Amino acid sequence: MRFDLITLFPDFFTSPLQSGLLAKALQNQIAEVICTNPRDFTTDKHHRVDDEPYGGGVGMLLKPDPIFAAVESLPCLPRRDIILMSPQGEPLTHQLLTTLSHDYDQLVLICGHYEGFDERIRHLATREISLGDFVLTGGEIPALTLVNGVTRLLPGTVGKTESLKTESFATGLLDYPQYTRPASFRGWDVPEVLRSGNHAAIAQWRTEQQHHRTRQRRPDLWATWQRQAQNPPADPDSSGSP
Amino acid sequence: MRFDLITLFPDFFTSPLQSGLLAKALQNQIAEVICTNPRDFTTDKHHRVDDEPYGGGVGMLLKPDPIFAAVESLPCLPRRDIILMSPQGEPLTHQLLTTLSHDYDQLVLICGHYEGFDERIRHLATREISLGDFVLTGGEIPALTLVNGVTRLLPGTVGKTESLKTESFATGLLDYPQYTRPASFRGWDVPEVLRSGNHAAIAQWRTEQQHHRTRQRRPDLWATWQRQAQNPPADPDSSGSP
Repeated sequence: MRFDLITLFPDFFTSPLQSGLLAKALQNQIAEVICTNPRDFTTDKHHRVDDEPYGGGVGMLLKPDPIFAAVESLPCLPRRDIILMSPQGEPLTHQLLTTLSHDYDQLVLICGHYEGFDERIRHLATREISLGDFVLTGGEIPALTLVNGVTRLLPGTVGKTESLKTESFATGLLDYPQYTRPASFRGWDVPEVLRSGNHAAIAQWRTEQQHHRTRQRRPDLWATWQRQAQNPPADPDSSGSP
Repeated sequence: MRFDLITLFPDFFTSPLQSGLLAKALQNQIAEVICTNPRDFTTDKHHRVDDEPYGGGVGMLLKPDPIFAAVESLPCLPRRDIILMSPQGEPLTHQLLTTLSHDYDQLVLICGHYEGFDERIRHLATREISLGDFVLTGGEIPALTLVNGVTRLLPGTVGKTESLKTESFATGLLDYPQYTRPASFRGWDVPEVLRSGNHAAIAQWRTEQQHHRTRQRRPDLWATWQRQAQNPPADPDSSGSP
């Protein structure tokens, strides 16, 4: 997977890309990240990337021309998506990360900044994604989130793919409680069942805990999960022809 | 505001904290960020911070002892909150960022990692926050998001506080479209009304655009906004006593 980040702050990404599992994935060439700075595509002598809003108001807006020029300078792989990171986009979910990791070879991420951006920049993007219902100083953190979340789902990044399948959201439920040594810590003990060696009982306990926890913490997710459990989507492998 | 980050990857934060508006806020001592590594609080010779899960399963879990020791080593300011960054927490919103920026002097953020963490670590936290319904390789990106979003709302970080008030989510609606020079770009023109100088017409156009855009892109936010517009919360300043 090739990630192209269109950002006025390429230095922002230096240390996060050298840290942890993401650094390993980049070393192993599972993914590559290339930053392109719109400021390098300005044509005036002051290298201006922002200007005042028409109609008045505080703050400066990103100008359209340097962003278009930056995106148009990039190579174009066959399966490419151009994503604008913006609080007005589609909220990021596990489902969306899965789609992006499967369906594309190149993701171009445009990081908004300052007080906002010129509306015409939207014409460049094939998709807009929001990290959530809040505003940050720029699109760099949302872009980094997407790079991390997509790379994590690419084959080879996480050692055993089984651990991807049981975690929060992959099943539509929150994860079950987990315990490691010591067996007793400050008066809190590991539940007896987990130390029983009875695999059927452990599996049942974990499923019950997933249901209980999702119902309690996230009634919205629980309602969605129940609806899908009652009306499972049609299985394409078992559909019809004799 | 003092942020304490409990993280196995303190180097992750180096360049993001030196970039853009967040770097300026730290230089101006509006906020400070201190990383504490649980690995420095291990007592065995291999400095182990993780171990296998009870009851079986793939992946390693963060052990409780080094995390407790790391948090207990910190000074304690009067208004302190200890937050566990976890996909199972309360989803991060603009409202929650506002509360955190107003109500606390110190936020301790515990970054989970690896496949998960020992359940007893939850006893340390007074709050759990999730970045959204997806999983990342660790809690560092969610913690950075929270530091950025909270710092941005502290007085002095963003030049004119007026620009905080009209943006997406602060009003409960998405932002209106904005335009800057050039007036015509690749055949897309700035709307006539924004160049009219008629401030009343501009304000009306912007409000209409906010309504239209929120209805179209985020019917969930629109429904919430309409409910609140019909039943506004009681104004504490106008409540009763003569």
